[in-house]
Parts: sequence; C-alpha cells; structure tokens
Amino acid sequence: MKIRLGMVGGGRGAFIGNVHRIAARLDNRYELVAGALSSDPNRAAESAAELGIAPKRSYASFEEMAKKESKLKNGIEAVAIVTPNHLHFPAAMAFLNAGIHVICDKPLTTSLADAEVLAAKVNASGLILAVTYNYSGYPMVRQAREMIAGGKLGNIRVIQVEYAQDWLATNIEAGGQKQAAWRTDPTKAGAGGSIGDIGTHAFHLAEFITGLTVKSILADLDSFVAGRRLDDNANILLHFSNGAKGMLWSSQIASGRENGLRIRIYGSRAGLEWAQEDPNYLRFTPLGEVQQTLTRGGPGAGESATAATRIPAGHPEGFLEGFANLYAGIADMIEAHRDGNKLDSLVPTVKDGLRGMRFVEKALTSNGSGSIWQSLEN
Amino acid sequence: MKIRLGMVGGGRGAFIGNVHRIAARLDNRYELVAGALSSDPNRAAESAAELGIAPKRSYASFEEMAKKESKLKNGIEAVAIVTPNHLHFPAAMAFLNAGIHVICDKPLTTSLADAEVLAAKVNASGLILAVTYNYSGYPMVRQAREMIAGGKLGNIRVIQVEYAQDWLATNIEAGGQKQAAWRTDPTKAGAGGSIGDIGTHAFHLAEFITGLTVKSILADLDSFVAGRRLDDNANILLHFSNGAKGMLWSSQIASGRENGLRIRIYGSRAGLEWAQEDPNYLRFTPLGEVQQTLTRGGPGAGESATAATRIPAGHPEGFLEGFANLYAGIADMIEAHRDGNKLDSLVPTVKDGLRGMRFVEKALTSNGSGSIWQSLEN
Amino acid sequence: MKIRLGMVGGGRGAFIGNVHRIAARLDNRYELVAGALSSDPNRAAESAAELGIAPKRSYASFEEMAKKESKLKNGIEAVAIVTPNHLHFPAAMAFLNAGIHVICDKPLTTSLADAEVLAAKVNASGLILAVTYNYSGYPMVRQAREMIAGGKLGNIRVIQVEYAQDWLATNIEAGGQKQAAWRTDPTKAGAGGSIGDIGTHAFHLAEFITGLTVKSILADLDSFVAGRRLDDNANILLHFSNGAKGMLWSSQIASGRENGLRIRIYGSRAGLEWAQEDPNYLRFTPLGEVQQTLTRGGPGAGESATAATRIPAGHPEGFLEGFANLYAGIADMIEAHRDGNKLDSLVPTVKDGLRGMRFVEKALTSNGSGSIWQSLEN
Amino acid sequence: MKIRLGMVGGGRGAFIGNVHRIAARLDNRYELVAGALSSDPNRAAESAAELGIAPKRSYASFEEMAKKESKLKNGIEAVAIVTPNHLHFPAAMAFLNAGIHVICDKPLTTSLADAEVLAAKVNASGLILAVTYNYSGYPMVRQAREMIAGGKLGNIRVIQVEYAQDWLATNIEAGGQKQAAWRTDPTKAGAGGSIGDIGTHAFHLAEFITGLTVKSILADLDSFVAGRRLDDNANILLHFSNGAKGMLWSSQIASGRENGLRIRIYGSRAGLEWAQEDPNYLRFTPLGEVQQTLTRGGPGAGESATAATRIPAGHPEGFLEGFANLYAGIADMIEAHRDGNKLDSLVPTVKDGLRGMRFVEKALTSNGSGSIWQSLEN
Repeated sequence: MKIRLGMVGGGRGAFIGNVHRIAARLDNRYELVAGALSSDPNRAAESAAELGIAPKRSYASFEEMAKKESKLKNGIEAVAIVTPNHLHFPAAMAFLNAGIHVICDKPLTTSLADAEVLAAKVNASGLILAVTYNYSGYPMVRQAREMIAGGKLGNIRVIQVEYAQDWLATNIEAGGQKQAAWRTDPTKAGAGGSIGDIGTHAFHLAEFITGLTVKSILADLDSFVAGRRLDDNANILLHFSNGAKGMLWSSQIASGRENGLRIRIYGSRAGLEWAQEDPNYLRFTPLGEVQQTLTRGGPGAGESATAATRIPAGHPEGFLEGFANLYAGIADMIEAHRDGNKLDSLVPTVKDGLRGMRFVEKALTSNGSGSIWQSLEN
Repeated sequence: MKIRLGMVGGGRGAFIGNVHRIAARLDNRYELVAGALSSDPNRAAESAAELGIAPKRSYASFEEMAKKESKLKNGIEAVAIVTPNHLHFPAAMAFLNAGIHVICDKPLTTSLADAEVLAAKVNASGLILAVTYNYSGYPMVRQAREMIAGGKLGNIRVIQVEYAQDWLATNIEAGGQKQAAWRTDPTKAGAGGSIGDIGTHAFHLAEFITGLTVKSILADLDSFVAGRRLDDNANILLHFSNGAKGMLWSSQIASGRENGLRIRIYGSRAGLEWAQEDPNYLRFTPLGEVQQTLTRGGPGAGESATAATRIPAGHPEGFLEGFANLYAGIADMIEAHRDGNKLDSLVPTVKDGLRGMRFVEKALTSNGSGSIWQSLEN
Repeated sequence: MKIRLGMVGGGRGAFIGNVHRIAARLDNRYELVAGALSSDPNRAAESAAELGIAPKRSYASFEEMAKKESKLKNGIEAVAIVTPNHLHFPAAMAFLNAGIHVICDKPLTTSLADAEVLAAKVNASGLILAVTYNYSGYPMVRQAREMIAGGKLGNIRVIQVEYAQDWLATNIEAGGQKQAAWRTDPTKAGAGGSIGDIGTHAFHLAEFITGLTVKSILADLDSFVAGRRLDDNANILLHFSNGAKGMLWSSQIASGRENGLRIRIYGSRAGLEWAQEDPNYLRFTPLGEVQQTLTRGGPGAGESATAATRIPAGHPEGFLEGFANLYAGIADMIEAHRDGNKLDSLVPTVKDGLRGMRFVEKALTSNGSGSIWQSLEN
Repeated sequence: MKIRLGMVGGGRGAFIGNVHRIAARLDNRYELVAGALSSDPNRAAESAAELGIAPKRSYASFEEMAKKESKLKNGIEAVAIVTPNHLHFPAAMAFLNAGIHVICDKPLTTSLADAEVLAAKVNASGLILAVTYNYSGYPMVRQAREMIAGGKLGNIRVIQVEYAQDWLATNIEAGGQKQAAWRTDPTKAGAGGSIGDIGTHAFHLAEFITGLTVKSILADLDSFVAGRRLDDNANILLHFSNGAKGMLWSSQIASGRENGLRIRIYGSRAGLEWAQEDPNYLRFTPLGEVQQTLTRGGPGAGESATAATRIPAGHPEGFLEGFANLYAGIADMIEAHRDGNKLDSLVPTVKDGLRGMRFVEKALTSNGSGSIWQSLEN
C-alpha cells in the first residue's frame, strides 16, 4: 500500500516542489493526495488540479490541511514541506501536532531556538521528521561513508568541503527573481544566507561521510553584492572531535560555478574525493598505491551504494535519483512505523537539521566576533 | 488524462523493464494497467501484483493481452515491448493489429525482412511505433543536433562514434547469465551480436545528431570469446550521403569499459564531442577559437535541450531522465493522435528501427564478403 | 665526452629543429658543432651563429657537410636530419656513406623503395639510424608496453589508435604557410599526407606498445579541403598478427583538436588508455576490478617508465622530455658503438622507419583500390 | 655570450639541483662553470666532474667559491643556491658581497629577520636576487595574471588556493629519508614546515596571479604525524587588500595527492581555475556565458603566455619548462644588468621572498595565539 503524501508549497513554477514529487514517484511508493501548494488560492487550486489532487484536498493553508487531513479516514500519513524557510517551523509543528510525519527541506528552521523546539516535539511524538539533505542520498556518498566506517582511510586527518555556485553573483533579487528574493531576505531565509542555503548541505555531508562530529568552527562571512543583507560567501575553519581539521567554503558568487558541492577527505591510509557534478565516480587514493576510481554500480561498490543504485555501472544516475533515495529511505521508515517499529536509517532526521542550525548560528557568532572559534557542542 | 500503458516482458529481475517503468512514471503521464510480464505464469502474476496491475489484466501471453485489451472500454492505448529481440516482431504486430500503439526496444526485429513488414504495417495503420533508441533523449544530444542543424559546425566531414562495454569479455553466457544467454543466441537475438545490441544505438546516434544518412558501410566483425556465435566486436567504416566519412566501433569485450557510448563530429567550422557516461556536458570546439564546454541547463543551451531538461545546470541528470524524455515525447504523440493529429517529434520511430536493421544486415554481408562496401540505400 | 652532433635543416623559425636541439641539450650529452641549417646561405650562417656553431662548420649543403666532417679529426659522430621529407633519403645516405650515425625525422623517406635502400645501407654499415617516433619516448607509453609484455592485459584483442589535429582544416597552404606548403606537396612530403605525417606516429605507437605486428590494413582516405593534393583524413582498419583487430584514424582537419594522439588497448584481462595531451597518466582497467590511474613516477611505475623519468610524480613532464628520452637512448647506443658494442634499445630505428613507409604505401594502395585489404608483410 | 653560472648544493642525488641545471640548460643561455656542490668534499668533486666543471672551480665551501670566483677574470656572474633552507641566507650574503647575482630557492631564509637583512643588502647592491617560485613560470599562470590585469574577471572577490602532497604522510624522516629529514628539522628548514616548503609557493601564486596583496591571515596549523616538529598541514584564511577573501590550504599529509598546487579565482565578471598537475589548461568561466578552456599556445593565449611557450598547442610542456622560464627571465635581467640597465620582469625577486617569510612568520604567530588575524603589512 502506497504512502499517502501531502505537500506544503511547491505550486507551479517552484523548482524544489517538482523535485520532491519526482523523487517520491520514482520508486512508486507514494501517492500525492493532498496539498496546500500556494498561499495564492487560485495558484493552489490550479496546481492541485495539474497534479491530480482532488479539489477538496487542496487546502488554502497548511493549518487547515493538518487539521482536516488528520481527521480523514485515509488522510495523509506524511507531508513534504517545500516552502521558504520561515514556514518550515510552523508547518512542521502543525503536522506533528496532527500526528503526521514530516519531510522538511533544509535548513530546518530560521533559528536554532526553533530547531530545538522542533527536535523536542519530534522526540516526544515518536513521529518521523526527515530533513532533505539530499546529497547524502547519492550512492557514491554512501560508498564513501561505508569505506571510512570500514577503516579504509585510517584515521581521518583533513576534510575539505565546498559548495560553490554563482547564481547570486549579481543583485538578481532586486530584479524580482522570486527564488533569490526570499533567499536573501532575513525575514524569510533566516539569519544565514549561503551558509544556511548551501553551507548546511556541505556541513551535513562532512559529518555524514566521515561519521565525525564538528567540535568547533571559525567563520569569515561576506556579502559581496552591494545591498545584500545576508552572506553570499563563507570561509570557515573546522575542528573535528577526533582532532581532524578542515575547511568549508560556501559561495553563491563564484562566477562560472553551477552547483559545485565537493568533498575531499584524507586519512592516515588513504584519501577520497567526490564531486556532486560528477556523482557516479569516487576517487580513492590509498597511500603508496595506484590511484583508483570507483564507479557507481561497478567493482568495489559496497552494500550501501548497491542498495541505493537502480541501474548498472556506466548508466549515469543523477540528482533526482539521489533525492529519490531519501524518499525511499523515508518510505522504509514510515512502513516500519506503521508496524510499530523504528528503523535505523541513513536518512537525515531532525537531529541533523538541528546540527545544521547550530552550524549557522555559530558561524554568524564567530563572524560577528572577528572570527573567534565557537563550540558546536551543546 | 494519463495514458493507459501495458507491458510485454519486464518481469522481476529484468533490468530494462524497470527502466521503462521508471521512465514512464517520471513525468506522471502514464499509468501501467496491464501486462504480459513473463512467459512463466507465476512470475508474471507475482510481477503484476508487485506493480499494482489488477490480476485480471495480467495476461499469460501478449496475444491474449492484445486481443482482450483491445475490447476493453478503457483498454491500454499503448504497449511497451521489452522482451528479447525475437519477440519484438510478433508482439508488435499483435498490438498494431489490435489498434494499440507500440513502444519497442531496439533492435526493432531479428531480420531486415521483418522490419520491413512492420514498417509497412505501421504506415498502413496510422499508429505510432516508437523505438527506444534512448540515447537520443539526452538533452545534450539534442543540443548537438540543434547546433549542427543551425550550421555551427559548417559542413560535416568526419564522424567517429563508438559504443564500448566489457560485460561479455568472458563467456558468461555459458554460466547461465540470463541477459548474456539470449543476447548471444542467434535464435533470440537475431544475426547481430554487438552490432545489434549496441551498434544500432551508435548508428542511430550518428544519423540523429548529424541529420545525415549513412550511404554505405564496410565491416570487420569478430567473436573474440571462444564458442560465441555472434559478433562481440565490430570495426566499421562509414560513408555518409554528403561525403562525410566515419568509423563506428561497437564492442562488448573492451575490458574495463562500462557503457562507453561516445560520439565526435568534426565540420569545416567546429567540432563537437559527447560521451554518454558524462552526459551533462557537450564539448564544442570552434576552429581557431577557445574550446567551450556547454552544460545541460547552462548558458548556450538551445530550445530542444531546454525542453528536455527538468532541473537546473549543475544538478546532473542521467540515463533514466534521458529515457524518460522519449516517454514524454511518445506521450505527446499519443495525445496528438487522440485528437486525430500527427506530431512531428524527435522520438525514433519505425523508420529508425528499420534503418538499424538494414545497418545490421549490411554489416554482416560486408563482413561475410571480406569487408566490401555495402549500400544502405534501399 | 659529449657526442658531437650536426644538424641538417632546422634553421631559424623551424619548429622541429629547435625541438631536436632542446631534446639533445636536456640531458647534456650532446654538443651541436656543425650544421647545414638552411638551403638559403644567409639564413644558414645566421642560424649557425645564433646556435654557437663555428662559421667554418656551417655548411652550404648536407653533401659538403658529410664530406668535410668525415675528414675532421673531431668531426661529428651523428647528424640530426630535420628537413622536409624528400631530403631525408639523400641526406641520410650521404652521412651513412661518410660513416656518421643518423637521427632522422619521420616519415623515413618519401617512398617505400627508398626506405628499403636505406635499411639495406644501415644494415651493411653497422651504423645507427634512429627515427624520431618521439611519442614512444613518453614514460607512460613505455609503461604501457612493459605492462603488456608482462601479461597484465592478457591476450590483446582490440587496439584503437588515433591522431587528430586541425591545423590543416582550411587551405592554409594556399596562403603560404611554409610548414603546410611542403607537407601538402607530394614532391616534398611524398605520397602520404596525414598518413605520413602523423599516421606513421600512430601506427608505430600501436606496434611499439603492444609488441604486435600489423598484418594487413584497409584504408579509406580523403582530402576534404578543396584543392589539396594529399590525404588530410584517413580511416584505416587494422589486422594484427595475433588476431587482434583495430582501427587507426589520422586527421589534420578535426576542427578543435590540437595534437590528439591517443591509444586504447583491450585484452582478455584488462584495458589501457593513454592520451598524448595528458601524458603523465595511464588509465588501467583490469576486468572486474576497480579502475586505476597510474601516474608518471608514482606507485606502480615499472622499470622502463622509471628509467625515462626525471622528476617526481605530480611534476608534469611533457613533449620535450619525451623527445629527449629518444636522444638519451640514442646517446647510449652511440656510446656503445664507440666501444664496439651494439645496444638493444627502445629507440625506433630504420626497421621502424621502414614499417612506417610500408604502412603509407599500402594505405594508398588500399584506398586506390576501393578499400581492399593489403598485406604489410614483405 | 652565455651567462657564467655557479651552483651551491645540488650534488649527486639532489632532486632540485638537477632541476635548476636542466632549467638553465634548456634555452642554452647559461654555462655551469663552478660549484660548491656538497659539504662532503668527495661528493662535491665527483659531482663536479660529472657535470663537466673544471676541478679547480669545484670548491669546498660557498665562502671559498664566492671569494675566489669574484677574483677571476671570467668568474661566475650568477650563482644558484639549492641547499637546505638554513644555508640560503649566509650563501646569498656571501655572493652578494662578492658582487655576484643570486638565484635562490624558496623559502628565502629561515626567519623574517634574515630576509629583511637580505632584502636591504640586495637593494643596496643593485644586484639581482631571484627566488625560484617556479610555478609562476608556467605559461597559463602568466595567462591568468594577464587576463586579470586586463579586467576579464572584474573585481576579484574570492581566491581559493591549495598545495597538497602526501609524501610526509608517514614518519619517513625517522627512516633517514634525507629530503624529509632536513625539511622537518627546524634548525635546517626554519620554523615553518609545510607552510614554508609549499605554502609559500601557494601564497606567492595567489599574489602573483591576482596582482593583489594579502593584507592579513589567520592560521590553523597541525603536525599530524607523531613526533613531527613542524607543521604538516595548514588551513589559513586570507584577507586581501581590495576586500577579496580567500583560503589557503597546504598539506604534506594528504594521502594520494602528489603535487596538487591549484588555484581558483572568482571575480564579479568571471572565474578562473588552474591546476599544476594539468598545467597546459586554464579554465575560464565568464558569468552567464559558456565555460571555456584555454590551452597553452592555443587560441586566446595572450602576450605573456606566448612569450613563455616553446612548442605548439597540444604538445604539453611541464614543470621543467616552467622552471626554465624563470631562468630565461633571469638571463634577460642579467644581460640588462651587464648593460647597466634594470629590467622589469615577471621573475620573483627578493621582495617576493620577503613576502613569503612574512607569511610564514605571521602564520605561526596566528596559530600560536589560537587563530587570531595577523597583519602582513610592515
């Protein structure tokens, strides 16, 4: 029986809403049956019609949707929240209060305080809150994680992670570009600019792959575009709990870079490199041995990568398949929950979302104090 | 209203059946409602159940399915044929006779004669027969085609195309690998080995991108693996109608190559290079100018590439998305047909399937005669 | 004691003369002491002066140089012939007759008959004639050869070799470009265009790396640029003595390609790929194992590559260093000859030069007969 | 008339001595006529003999060499100092005092104070002191510099530079590896480990290419290998004088990295990327336009790159040719000095060497203070 899914946000023209829907559809385990797709009622209704959502299950607000769906016999079991950041918190709270699982875009909230409230709520409720740090769904990312956990790199010493784009290299928010407008507006995006929007992805990836915890950070943030209110470039130093050191660069003004998320990890026995724009490959360089390139689905692929791959080596999978791997994992979790079980999973949850918000808040504190180390321990 | 789709073949464990299903599902324009998924009745029934096909619409044979579905009020409008090659012809004929559109895997048939019969049938019926030369669905392939049509390369002079894999480098058919067993069996695959299975993809790609016609070919085929009955490596020279020259290499014994379909085209004004394993990029080298790399969704993307892309530059799309672009195009064609119209489309049809079979047959003739040029004109 | 070297051709502005001089100088084992650097006496004298050659050892002709140097007490021991092709034969004969070793550019001569005369002369004289198939000097080319000789690839099945450039994509010879003018003039270049100028390099590389002999070829040649008298594109099929099959593509009209010599070899156990424009890497793909990239000077480098490398891994060496490896090998041979010994060496000699001329002649014959297989056995 | 050159250090088996000699020889503008090649007299004499240096001009110490050569009629005009770091200062002072130009390896000295004394001496003497930040000799590095100076990137905003190796990933100094032993010994290397040995290269490259000055730095240094006394990994934040921000990573423990010097620069109009291990290419990404790849010697090459290139595009040049470009520039400076002129040049001089020492010293101060910003202005 497919999982009954609702969606908040993601009406016509919204990029990420469609991504979530394709990801949910890819493995055929969800059916989208309800939505509060837009704050504009006409847009909401039209979008719902296009998506085959029955008119009576197209709602004017997420509050109404949470309330009414929770009372239906076959109401939604989970909701995907794909709105601007400032709505993540109230929407997630509404659905959790209604006993509905939540799939929430990143960053989790617009403040660390809200994230902590949400985490407490999730823990109290026993419900699932998944955060779509979708890059952790790529098979070769999971391969990297498995290789490190298996000791292939020895002791991790250095982690270099970056996420570079250029779409905010000019002041497009002034020209009314909708995506840019809310992402550069502190009332909607929260206090983090690039660090919240993409830095949290990079941060999660570093902890996810290495299995390590970032202990403290030191940040140097900039807003290079005149008039911009949030950071558009961040240079951040990292201290990991095991003594490893790293740097994190997030930028939305790196001219000519499209979606350059990349991580490099060096241990006492080997190194690993992965780049999101070329996701089917993982470069593995054991110290003193010939360099290797693992391919998705190819020789050397471990259990977690194999489980996350649909087609053979040489047939490239991409962003949508990686995203769908999160949805598949969430489906597993929800099905276990139906049976009263709790599933260990690779899917990022509220804990990871909370880490991300702590990262954002401490980066801002460090930068505001002239680049002083800030602890990420709570 | 979604298109009602059936499937022949593609039961549990079949790679390509699942690919077709994901491709059909990705853009949410089809519903899979009937199937003759396996010649093994239990397997057929179980597979149908897994896919949510109603038991009464899970058939024991394609003949039965064609007959019964054509009489249902809401019977299938189209069928995907994803069986071994020797069943393509009878299955396609059965559905065309039943007035049902056909989506057929390549190569179209096991003989040129069958392909000609099928082509005549399609033309007489007015129905759609699409052939899944799926690599033509990649956005950057369509970009290349559009650039050449727009004169960016000048007169085309040289085309180098290749499709290299290694999965048949050893005699795995002897070990009972199912995919290998039928693909190396002339009674199931037809007279072509690598030339039929992957050479036809390369051949189609060369004609599709350049808009040229191959006038004649000269072939040197081998079966390197002892005991193999069909070619596993083919070196072929090409003469194009406009005077361009080329080479086509197809191999299933190229140790270490996964799915290396690659094409390079050189004209009087510029060159183009594309590789399937890195499909989001197109290298464009105008004579006497700085080398360029176009990215899917990035600056320089033309109309046809843009129409075939779902997510922004830097977010890689892959094989499944390219395959889904064929399904989307077929959906457009079917919807036009519902309205009594005929749509011009980039989707390969019976004409292209027939070209592929002529290519296979003439390659075998050339090889059998000690590598003599053979005309591909009919 | 350094080897006393003379040079024929290579005056001011000549690209390849300077390459030979740098290659000779790099390891400090030669001194350039005589020259017939240009057929223009002023140019010859000025070039000699620039190069520190004493005026009395700057000659008006190679005939004079051969005659006079052979009578000097410390006359040259070897001469580098870097003229247009048609002078290779008479110059080489003159110096061999004078008892002087010859280092000759490729192709060896302008006809197979001349090459046979030259080979007989070399064999009779006991002198050294090296042919600068310089690409065989690259460390990773030698590494590839050593790996194949050591059985790492198993039985060789397929060889794909190509050499693609674009500098003759337009009719620059008409505009007086000197290098183009003689290379497209059959009275100076010989009967082969691209096949002689670069095809011979590709052909030598295939035999050198694999240790196999090409048994027969089948050629399809073109002159795409209007008015051009020699081939500027060649598509050639190869049969090797062990049953391996291959294709060779040489082109000087591949728009946007600079100096694209590239070889790929597939055996029953592994594949190898090398590209001249990225010469410090060798891709090695053992069947069923993770893909490897060997680096010059890095782990996995064998004896012959190590012997041909000067600086550590990660410090790229290039074309000049590869060329210098030939000069170093020739110096070893000459020093052995001083001592009355004959040295086995990786340096291409008259035998290889002769093979190249047979390749050119048979390619022309095959093409002239409508692409019929021609034996390369004599 | 060739420049008469001496050398201090660089006896048998020393890597960098041979590099300097090849670089000096490549363009035929120097003759090596004197040396104090080793502190071991036998080794010095044998090395000199191998290099064709007359026995009487093979000296036991640099002091003796400076003194005696300065009194010869045709004594050396310049000396290359290729010793461990701690000898750079006394040797350079000795030759400057003797009126001899100095070509000195990096880092310039072992302390900022020494560097300042040396700079004062150079300025007072009017002699040339070149520092072999050799990576600035690569043609595409100079191309990058010229493009930035020409405004192609607009205002520079972000600079990411890194230099990653792995040769010190284990405690090889304990095993007696000579190169490692002195480089990890503060009495010979100075107070900087990786930051001195390779960090100074990265630092120089960033200032050289951008034409900007680093205003302040913040450093986080580590010695990951147990027992190591100097840093083997450095994560450093950079503030540039124009407001640009950057990060510099130097590491000698990055397992699997060979000689990974790489720089990426992003301005308001475009980005640039260059990697030393692939030095013939420069990636140029103008905002909103198709990505470009410039090639050494190819279309788009500017004046400074063209002047630094010897062979055509597609014929790769490497590390030695880049190094030789410094020697060629120094030869120009020395020849100008012979004529009483002073030449503006791209060659790094004592000023750059001094900047490097300030970088090292301030990095250590910042690290010692818990990562506090340190000014690099004096």
